[in-house]
Amino acid sequence: MDQELADFHEITPTAPLTVGEHGGRAKCLQRLVRLDLPVPQTVAIPFETVHRIAAGYRMDTGALLSVFGKSPMVSVRPSSEDPDWGGPGAILNIGMNDAKHAQLVETQGKEAADRLYRRFVQTFAIHVARLDPDMFDGQPDLADVLHAYEEETDETFPQDPAQQLLQVLRSMARAWEGTTARLLRQAKGAPADAGLGLVVQRMALGIGGGESGSGVIQFVNATTGKPQITGRYMSQSQGRAALDGDQGALFLTRDPRGPSLEEQCPEAFAELVNCGDICRTRLREEMQVEFTLEAGKLHILDAVRVPRTARAGVRIAVKLAEAGIISREEAVLRIEPRALAELMHSQVDPRGTRDRIAHGIAASPGAASGKLVFSSAAAQASAARDEACVLVRRETQPEDIRGMHAAKAVLTVRGGVTSHAAVIARGLGLPCVVGASDITLKSRDKVLVTNDGRTLKEGDFVTIDGSSGEALLGAVEMLPPAVDDCFSALLQWAENLGGMKVRANADTPADARTARRFGADGIGLCRTEHMFFEVDRLTVMRETIFADEETDRRAALEQLLPMQRDDFVGLFEIMEGLPVCIRLFDPPLHEFLPHDRSGIRAMAEALDLPISQVTRRIETMSEFNPMLGMRGVRLGVLFPEIYEMQARAIFEATVEAGKSGRLVVPEIMIPLVSAMREVELVKNNVDAIAAAVRNETGAEFDYKLGVMVETPRAALRAGDIGHHAAFLSFGTNDLTQMTYGLSRDDAGRFMGAYVQQGVYPEDPFHTLDLDGVGELLLIGAQRAREERKEVVISLCGEHGGNPESIEFCHSAGFDYVSCSPFRVPIARLAVAHAALREAHMSFDELDE
Amino acid sequence: MDQELADFHEITPTAPLTVGEHGGRAKCLQRLVRLDLPVPQTVAIPFETVHRIAAGYRMDTGALLSVFGKSPMVSVRPSSEDPDWGGPGAILNIGMNDAKHAQLVETQGKEAADRLYRRFVQTFAIHVARLDPDMFDGQPDLADVLHAYEEETDETFPQDPAQQLLQVLRSMARAWEGTTARLLRQAKGAPADAGLGLVVQRMALGIGGGESGSGVIQFVNATTGKPQITGRYMSQSQGRAALDGDQGALFLTRDPRGPSLEEQCPEAFAELVNCGDICRTRLREEMQVEFTLEAGKLHILDAVRVPRTARAGVRIAVKLAEAGIISREEAVLRIEPRALAELMHSQVDPRGTRDRIAHGIAASPGAASGKLVFSSAAAQASAARDEACVLVRRETQPEDIRGMHAAKAVLTVRGGVTSHAAVIARGLGLPCVVGASDITLKSRDKVLVTNDGRTLKEGDFVTIDGSSGEALLGAVEMLPPAVDDCFSALLQWAENLGGMKVRANADTPADARTARRFGADGIGLCRTEHMFFEVDRLTVMRETIFADEETDRRAALEQLLPMQRDDFVGLFEIMEGLPVCIRLFDPPLHEFLPHDRSGIRAMAEALDLPISQVTRRIETMSEFNPMLGMRGVRLGVLFPEIYEMQARAIFEATVEAGKSGRLVVPEIMIPLVSAMREVELVKNNVDAIAAAVRNETGAEFDYKLGVMVETPRAALRAGDIGHHAAFLSFGTNDLTQMTYGLSRDDAGRFMGAYVQQGVYPEDPFHTLDLDGVGELLLIGAQRAREERKEVVISLCGEHGGNPESIEFCHSAGFDYVSCSPFRVPIARLAVAHAALREAHMSFDELDE
Repeated sequence: MDQELADFHEITPTAPLTVGEHGGRAKCLQRLVRLDLPVPQTVAIPFETVHRIAAGYRMDTGALLSVFGKSPMVSVRPSSEDPDWGGPGAILNIGMNDAKHAQLVETQGKEAADRLYRRFVQTFAIHVARLDPDMFDGQPDLADVLHAYEEETDETFPQDPAQQLLQVLRSMARAWEGTTARLLRQAKGAPADAGLGLVVQRMALGIGGGESGSGVIQFVNATTGKPQITGRYMSQSQGRAALDGDQGALFLTRDPRGPSLEEQCPEAFAELVNCGDICRTRLREEMQVEFTLEAGKLHILDAVRVPRTARAGVRIAVKLAEAGIISREEAVLRIEPRALAELMHSQVDPRGTRDRIAHGIAASPGAASGKLVFSSAAAQASAARDEACVLVRRETQPEDIRGMHAAKAVLTVRGGVTSHAAVIARGLGLPCVVGASDITLKSRDKVLVTNDGRTLKEGDFVTIDGSSGEALLGAVEMLPPAVDDCFSALLQWAENLGGMKVRANADTPADARTARRFGADGIGLCRTEHMFFEVDRLTVMRETIFADEETDRRAALEQLLPMQRDDFVGLFEIMEGLPVCIRLFDPPLHEFLPHDRSGIRAMAEALDLPISQVTRRIETMSEFNPMLGMRGVRLGVLFPEIYEMQARAIFEATVEAGKSGRLVVPEIMIPLVSAMREVELVKNNVDAIAAAVRNETGAEFDYKLGVMVETPRAALRAGDIGHHAAFLSFGTNDLTQMTYGLSRDDAGRFMGAYVQQGVYPEDPFHTLDLDGVGELLLIGAQRAREERKEVVISLCGEHGGNPESIEFCHSAGFDYVSCSPFRVPIARLAVAHAALREAHMSFDELDE
Repeated sequence: MDQELADFHEITPTAPLTVGEHGGRAKCLQRLVRLDLPVPQTVAIPFETVHRIAAGYRMDTGALLSVFGKSPMVSVRPSSEDPDWGGPGAILNIGMNDAKHAQLVETQGKEAADRLYRRFVQTFAIHVARLDPDMFDGQPDLADVLHAYEEETDETFPQDPAQQLLQVLRSMARAWEGTTARLLRQAKGAPADAGLGLVVQRMALGIGGGESGSGVIQFVNATTGKPQITGRYMSQSQGRAALDGDQGALFLTRDPRGPSLEEQCPEAFAELVNCGDICRTRLREEMQVEFTLEAGKLHILDAVRVPRTARAGVRIAVKLAEAGIISREEAVLRIEPRALAELMHSQVDPRGTRDRIAHGIAASPGAASGKLVFSSAAAQASAARDEACVLVRRETQPEDIRGMHAAKAVLTVRGGVTSHAAVIARGLGLPCVVGASDITLKSRDKVLVTNDGRTLKEGDFVTIDGSSGEALLGAVEMLPPAVDDCFSALLQWAENLGGMKVRANADTPADARTARRFGADGIGLCRTEHMFFEVDRLTVMRETIFADEETDRRAALEQLLPMQRDDFVGLFEIMEGLPVCIRLFDPPLHEFLPHDRSGIRAMAEALDLPISQVTRRIETMSEFNPMLGMRGVRLGVLFPEIYEMQARAIFEATVEAGKSGRLVVPEIMIPLVSAMREVELVKNNVDAIAAAVRNETGAEFDYKLGVMVETPRAALRAGDIGHHAAFLSFGTNDLTQMTYGLSRDDAGRFMGAYVQQGVYPEDPFHTLDLDGVGELLLIGAQRAREERKEVVISLCGEHGGNPESIEFCHSAGFDYVSCSPFRVPIARLAVAHAALREAHMSFDELDE
C-alpha cells in the first residue's frame, strides 16, 4: 500500500500537493476543490512517478483506477510546474472498450457511444501507438476505425482500462522527456530537469443524453482586460472542441447573432458566473474555466489564468487591487516591467495577419503605418501634406533629423541598436527597425526590393513594427497606446514603494516633456551634441570645426552660445527644479561633416571654401576606429573653448531659469574620461567660467561636476577620479564595447550566432554583463565611495531601462538609473520589484 | 664657527661629502683628492646653503676665502646631483681686483695680468651684474672694460673678494632656481626640488709665466669606445678655451699635422696618462680630465665621465669588466637597455649635419639612405637594379609587402606605431617613419612636397632616421651597426643572470632567424595572418573570403593548408625545439580586400566575379570600428574551418619537423577572447583536429592551447578562461586600446598634446600604464593562477621590449615577455637589470 500511496494522490482539500512536486494544474484543481466547486474526482501523479514511468516503471494503474470505482472513464492532462512550459496534449475517454461501449449504448444511445469510443481509439492510435493520423481518413464508423487499428498493429484494441491508462501515462511521460520538447521548454526558461506531473480525472461526458456539452468561459477581455464574458460552448462536444470551430458553438451571453448558453441553460450559466466570482475573490485572479455539462449538470474540469496582453494584465492587476482582493504591492509584482512597453505605443493588433517584407533589429518599440518615402525631403513634403509616411534609408545621417521628425516610423538597412537612427527614434518615441539587411534599397529609383523579390515603390503603404523588428506590407490593424488610469495607478504605487530614483535620458524639450509625463525623477543624461544636428546650427558647427585658429573657433562658438543657452533654459523650465545632468560634447567632430559629394559641395559653398580643401579636411579628420578616437573629453582638453562655451551656456541658463525663483542646480558630466588629470583640467576651466558668469550677472548659483565612466580605466581609477567628481555615471554602452572589445555597430553580424551557440548567454548590449562589465561597475562604485562617501553613483547607458541591470544597480546601492523617456515606466516598475524582493528577503529571514 | 662649518666643507679625503647633499662634482673631486691627484685646494658648498643664498642669506664668504690663505683667486663651478641636469657656467678668477692685478703684473707680466682681470670683469658684468654683453665690443683694454662697467652701473668694480664671491654665489644660486632652468632639467628627469651645490676652487693660472695653459684629455674614443687619447691643450688659456677654437691649440699625442703636448711637455703628458690609468682602475670609469699647467706644473681641476655613444658605452663597460676592474653584473647594470637599439642598426652619424625634410613617428629604429620611390612596383624595380631605395606611401596596404621587402627604408604620411607599415618594418628591421603628416604626397606626379615648400621627385636621395622619426635630405654619413664581440659578451652575461625568459614576436623564417641571432628563448607570438599577405596567397585568401558556402570556403582553405604547413615546418626547424607560440588568425577579413578601384578591378578579374558584386561584398564587410569588430576568435567561432585549417597545418608541421628526432611542442594561441565559451569551442575543434592528425599519421605529439588576453573582460574572467588554457599571454596593445577606449592608430592626433599637458604621464602605447592596464595584468595573472597553479603567464604586446614593462612583469612573476626580434637584446638586458635590482634589494635587507 505504501508503494501505491507514493505513486499518486487523490486530490482532496488536504492532500499534500505542491506545485514543485505535482505541477500547477494539480495544485490549481486542489484549490478549486477547496472552494467546493463541482470538480470531477481527480488523482494527481507526481513528477517523480512520471519520471519513473518514462524510465520503464510499470505503475499499478489498476489500483489508481479503483479510486474511481467500477469501470470508470477518465482523462489524463499534463501538470507541469509552469503552464507556459507546455506538455503533451490531454487524452480523454480512457477506459472506453467494447464492454463500456455496450453499456453506453444503453444509457446514452449508440451515436454518442460510438463517438466516444471512436475518439478514444483514434487518439490512442495516434498519440500512444504512434500510428499515422492519415490512416483514419474516410473511416467515419467505429467498426472501421477499430479494424484499421487492428490491421496496422496486428493486435486488437486493448480492452483492459488499466493497460490503456498505463500506456497513455508512459507515452505522455516519454513525450515530455524527448529532446525537442526539452529544447522548446528550455527556450521558455524551463530548467533542464523540469518535471511533468499528470492529473487523471473522471470523465464528465459532454456527449450523451440531456443537455450535454463542453465549453470554456472567462470573465474579462483578454486584449483589454475589461469585464466581458467571452468563450464558447458546444453541445455534444468534449474538451476544448467548442473553441476549435464556430460551427454549432453557442455564444455564452445573450447575443443578437444567435442562441446563447445564458438563454438555453440559465442555471448552468449563473453557476458559471458565480464560479468566476469565486475564482476572482478566492484565487485572486481572473481565470479561464473549462467546463462540461453532463445531462444538464455542471462540472468544472480545469481553470487557468486568463492568457492576456500586457495592457489587459495591467488592468486586471489594478482592478483586483482596487477591489481589495490583492495588495497594491502584489499588483505591482504581478506585472513584468518589460510588458509596459506594449502599453506606451501603438501595437500591431496580434489578431491580424502579418505579411512581412523586411526583418531587422527592433530598435524602438511600437508600430506605425504610412507611405514609403526614401529621403528626408520626401518625408518633410509628406508631413506638409499631412500624410503619414515611413522613412527608409540605408542609414541615417545627422542631416536626416528633420526627416525623422516628419516620419511616423523609420526603417534602415544598416546599423545596430545604438546607430544614429535607433538613438534618435527612441528619443522621439518613433517605431524604428534598423539593420534590415534582407531588403535591397535603390534610393535613386525610389524602390525597395524584398528578399522574396517583391518591389515596393514610393507611396506604397507599409507598417513598421519596432517591437518585433519587422516591416509589414500595408497599413495593418493597430491597438492604440494604453497609457490610461490603470497604467498611472500602477506606476504611482510602484513609485510609492521607494528604492532607486529613475531619471530619463533627454536631449530636447520634447524628450524632457515625455520624461515628465512618465514621471522621471530628473534628466540623467542630456546629450548636448544632438542639439547641433539641427540644420541652422550644423552650419555654424561646421564653421567651428573648420576654424584653423582658436580665435576663429571661438568666434563660431560665440554664435552657438545663445542657441545652447536657450536649449538649457527650455530644459530647466520644463524640469521645474528636478535635476538635469548635462553631458558635455562627446562625438568625434567628423560626425558633423558630410560624407557624400553633394553634401561636400553644399558645405564648400556655405563656408566659401574650395571643395578640395573641404575634402582634404574631412579626410584628415576621418578615423580608423572613431569609437576609440578623438572624442569626449579628449576634444575638451584639446579644444577647451568648446566645453567653455557649453559651460557658459549652462550657467547663463541657470541664472536665467533661476529668475522665476526656481532653484536650478545643473549637473555637468564629462564624457569618455580615462585619466584623473582630464577631470582636473576640465574642472579648472568650468570653475573659471562659473566664476566669470557669477561675476558678470551678480547671481549666485551652484552646480555639480561629475564623470561619465565609459572606459574600463575610468572604472579602475574611480578612486582618483572620484576625488574630483560629485557624481559618477556609468555609460554602460561604451563600457560594454570596451570591456568586450566589441563595437555595437559591428557586432550585429555575429551576435545572433554568438547567442545561439551560447558563447554569450545574452547580447551584452541588451542585458548587462554582470560578470565582466558588472564587476567594473562594482569596482568603480566602491573605489569612488572609499574616496568620497557622498559621491552619487548611477547608470545612464542603454541598460538603464533593463530590469536585470536595474536589480543589479539596486542591490549595489546605486543612487539612480537613467534611461530613455519611454522606458522610465519600465524602469520604475523594475525598481519597485527590486525593492520588494529585497524587502521580502528580510521578511523571509524574520519568518524563519 | 658652527654656522660656518655648516655652510661649506673643504674637500679633504675625509670630509663628510655626499652626492645627494653636495652634488656629483664635489664628490668626484673628493675621489680625485683621495687618489692623491694634484687637485687645487677646493671647498664644497652644499645644496642647503646654496638654496638659502638664493633666498637672501648672506653667507660669510670671507670665512670661506680664508681657507685659501691670503688674497687667493678662485673659481666657482656648479655641482648638481646628476651632471646631465646642467647648471650655471663656471666663473673664474674671482678675487681679481686692482691690488691683485698690480701683484700679478709683477709675477706674470702685464699682459697676463690684464687678460685675467679683463676676463673676470667681463664675466662678472655679464653673468652677475646682468649687463649687456655687447657693451664690451671693441674694448680690448682693461681700462676700457673697467670704465664701461662703471659707466653702466654707476659703481666702481667691486674690489672686495668676499663681496665678489658672495655676488657670484648668489647669481649662480638664483639662476638655478629660475623657471626656465627648472623646466629644462625636469625635462631631463630632475625632480622639482633638485638642489645645486657649488665648488669653490683655488685658481691654477693657465695664463702667465712658464709653460702655462689649460686643456681637456680623455683616453677612449667617445664614438667607438676604443682606446685613443683625444682632447686639446692650449697655452695661455683658461677653462675649456682649448676646446672652443682650434687656433693655437695643440694636439695631445704626437701628430704629423702639428706640435703636440706629448712632445712639448713630455713629463706633464706622462703624468696625465698616469692620471687616466688611476681614474680607470680606481674610479673604475673612463674619465675626461680638465687640467691646467701653471708654470709647467700639472693641476687636475675636474674630471667627468667621458660622454659617449651607446656603442662606446658598451665597449667601455665590457672592457672594464674584462680587465677585472668592475664585475660583469656592474657592466650589465651600467648599460641602459634602450641604448642597445643604437648598436643593432645603422645610425645617422651624430657628428654630421641634418637637413630635415619630414618629421613623423619613429616607428622602427635605425637609418638608411636611398632614392625616393612612390610605389611598391618602383621599389621592386629599383631593387632589381641593385639601387637602394626609400619607399614613400600615404599608408601601406597588404599589397605593399613586396615593395617593403625591396626598400631600404619606409616613410608613410599616415598611421601610428601599430600601423601596417610600422609592424612590418619592425619585423623586417627596416628603418621606418610613419605619420609624417608635414609632407604632401602627390604619388601620381611622383613628387613629395615638404612643409617648407621644397619639392622632391622620384630618384632624389633621402635618408630615413627611424630612431628620431625624421627624413633627411641626401645620403648622410652613417655609423654601421655594432653587433660585435662586446655586444655579445654583454648579452651573454645578462642571460647568465637568469630571470624571466625573453621570446621574440616572429612571423616569418627571416624573423625567426633574427630572433635566434639575438638569442631569443623561443617565439612568443607568431602572427599567422602575415603569412597570407604574400601575393600568391592573397588571391586564395580572397577566394576564401568570397566563398558563400562553407564547402567553398573549405575548398579554398584546402589550397592554403600546404603553404601554412610549410611556414610552420620552417619555423620549427629554425627554432630547433625552442617553444613556438602561434596565434590563430586574428584580423578582420576585410583587411585582405583591396580598397581602391584598380585593386577591386584586379580582384574581380582574378575571382571571375562582376565588379559590382565585389564592391558590394567589400561594403558589406566594412566595419565602423574594425578594432572592435569581427576578428580574432569571433571569426574562429563563426567560420571554424579557418582555425581548423590552421590547427591542421600546425599539427602536420609538428609531425613533419618531428621526423628529424627533434621534440616540437607547438603552442596555439586564441586571439581576442572575451568569454570562456569561446575558448571551449575552439579547444573542442582543435582537439578534434589533433586526434585526426594523430590518427592519419600514426605519430604522437603534444601541444599547448592558450589564450591571448587582449580585452579587459578576458583579464577579469581569467579564472574561467584559465581553466581551459595552458597559458595566458597579455596582448597589451589591444588591452591598452580597450582599457583607455583609445585607438592607437587615431591617438596620434592628440597624444603629443596629452603627454605635454601631463594628462597621461607617458604615451600608454609606449610605456605600459601600470595603474590601469597593469592592474588588469595583475588581476588576470592572479585569477588564472588561483584556478590553475601551473598556467604560464606572459606579455607579448609592443610593451614586451620596454624596460619599465619588463620590470613590472618580472616583479609580477611572469614567465616570459615576447617582443620584436630587434628588441630581444634590450629586453634581455632589462630582465637582467630587474633581476639584479631584485637581488640587491635582498642584499640590502640582509645588510640591515
